Amino acid sequence: MPELRQNFFTKEWVIIATERAKRPEELATHRAPQEVPSFVESCPFCPGNESRTPPEVLRYPVSLAEPWSVRVIPNKFAALSSEVQPTRSLQHLRRRIDGFGFHEVIIDSPDHSRCLPLLPDAHVAGILHAYRDRYRTLSVDRRVNHITIFKNHGADAGASLQHPHSQLIATPVIPSQVRHRLHEARRHYDDAGECMFCHMVEREVEDQMRIVIKGEHFVGMEVFAAATPFATHIFPLRHMASFGDISDLEIADLARVLRALLAKIYIGLENPDLNFTIRSGPTEYSGARHFHWYVSVIPRLTRVAGFELGSGMFINTVLPEAAAEFLRKVSVEHAAGAGA
Amino acid sequence: MPELRQNFFTKEWVIIATERAKRPEELATHRAPQEVPSFVESCPFCPGNESRTPPEVLRYPVSLAEPWSVRVIPNKFAALSSEVQPTRSLQHLRRRIDGFGFHEVIIDSPDHSRCLPLLPDAHVAGILHAYRDRYRTLSVDRRVNHITIFKNHGADAGASLQHPHSQLIATPVIPSQVRHRLHEARRHYDDAGECMFCHMVEREVEDQMRIVIKGEHFVGMEVFAAATPFATHIFPLRHMASFGDISDLEIADLARVLRALLAKIYIGLENPDLNFTIRSGPTEYSGARHFHWYVSVIPRLTRVAGFELGSGMFINTVLPEAAAEFLRKVSVEHAAGAGA
Repeated sequence: MPELRQNFFTKEWVIIATERAKRPEELATHRAPQEVPSFVESCPFCPGNESRTPPEVLRYPVSLAEPWSVRVIPNKFAALSSEVQPTRSLQHLRRRIDGFGFHEVIIDSPDHSRCLPLLPDAHVAGILHAYRDRYRTLSVDRRVNHITIFKNHGADAGASLQHPHSQLIATPVIPSQVRHRLHEARRHYDDAGECMFCHMVEREVEDQMRIVIKGEHFVGMEVFAAATPFATHIFPLRHMASFGDISDLEIADLARVLRALLAKIYIGLENPDLNFTIRSGPTEYSGARHFHWYVSVIPRLTRVAGFELGSGMFINTVLPEAAAEFLRKVSVEHAAGAGA
Repeated sequence: MPELRQNFFTKEWVIIATERAKRPEELATHRAPQEVPSFVESCPFCPGNESRTPPEVLRYPVSLAEPWSVRVIPNKFAALSSEVQPTRSLQHLRRRIDGFGFHEVIIDSPDHSRCLPLLPDAHVAGILHAYRDRYRTLSVDRRVNHITIFKNHGADAGASLQHPHSQLIATPVIPSQVRHRLHEARRHYDDAGECMFCHMVEREVEDQMRIVIKGEHFVGMEVFAAATPFATHIFPLRHMASFGDISDLEIADLARVLRALLAKIYIGLENPDLNFTIRSGPTEYSGARHFHWYVSVIPRLTRVAGFELGSGMFINTVLPEAAAEFLRKVSVEHAAGAGA
């Protein structure tokens, strides 16, 4: 029997189409493992080609005496510009803002071939440190109201360069998905006197059936009302509204949980194209009691069709509980390989 | 300079990335015209294969003495089932509904090769009559709260069968995109005492710059804050909250406007994959003053990447005014060819 489930955070309904149901393993890409070289002469993100990108705004290690392990640069093809002011105008109810913002690229490592699940945990922690460093620095700018940090892995997920990298976009407005969640979170807090995310995480940890992986400070789980197969959330167990507030200890744990989760997807589903996003509250939200940041991981296993696009309501053919069971069983002990 | 624009109906912001701007013609598929046969022996939607689909729930002409021109059947791989009741349950704030609903397929014509822009206006009107007929019939069912009618054209737009067809999904809940629009529409009505859609359509018709095509009863325009290139809306000029209230005269005009618009896209952008959706108010909305139904047309010219997926905020690389100018210039006089 098909089933409709309501997303607890947005109150949006999704259809879990069990009549069309697929076993999780049917969604594996069956993609032959690619031989990717670790250095590509023509790649602007490979070591030695630093002059082909805009000057870096951050590098680890900070000392220029050592080769870099993580590099942050302004996006050469930025969607928004930090050179303009966010001037607003209104004409016949049509609102515009001049395109102020920051658009940066985080180069995950010097190695062209190693995507995030194949990097050592300590290196993933370095990438997360770079995220937090840029998040904190840009948050101070009073024109910035929200910062989205995200990863496109694979062409179908929007990656135009193969060298593993992440991106950051700082906007003068709150993106709609965050806005809807803030609205519902505020309402739940007023109704129930608690953070709706904390509440849900506690219940899910009790229930176990959708949990994929649990660390000391983070838990990764399949989404109860997942819009697409294998949609996964990673939540900090401590209440925090802003990604900028993550501690060093928490970064080390998130690195382990995120890498292990991505490795389970990489191995179990045979390296599908994938996006992940850090969904933080607005930059002013440090200390907010009603919102809770998290990481949303979306493997790109299906295409969005007319019904989804036109209604915003999704049809998901994989039961989230089956997806969780599948991912729990994928062993990732040796995924980081020689470099671990 | 890039620009942020706010969607008037949802208050969502989009980035119009003029720094990365593309001229409209750059997005053409450059796809070689395909030789599609008008009859395919193995196609379940081709004439003679009627027994391979579930029994029809509607056919035009109604008389069985004549061959059918439009046929409506239950979807063999339905996402929802009319055999179950929409029983609700709530456990730890996790809401579910048993998967009640209707999922039907409208076979546009017996001709395997003729997609909608290549059909005569009168035939398109027949398809719209079938939409309205099913809309009205299913609206009477008190368990149905919303009906989405949509078209997937091409594999990237989610079409799994090539034979031109549309679909209808009747749900016991209001899809999220409609829900957000209802909320904003109600608020605008309370604030301004008018339908926000009527207001916007009037201003756009005055301004002209985003108008693509205007009929007697319908107007097609590029969306001011389009999330994706060539996102186009067709509005009825008369205030109507429910698609079920469209008159025969209006159907004839919508057939002309919709076909001409799709033909402009078909010719100008070289047959891109495409979705359109009829966005009606809830089934109970006949007579509602604050909402206004419309058709949303989305050519699938770009991929959704991590930022869009993770934030709900889109980056559009084509200026809507340039898209409108481009489409206005595409001549479609002979598009319907021999069959017109």
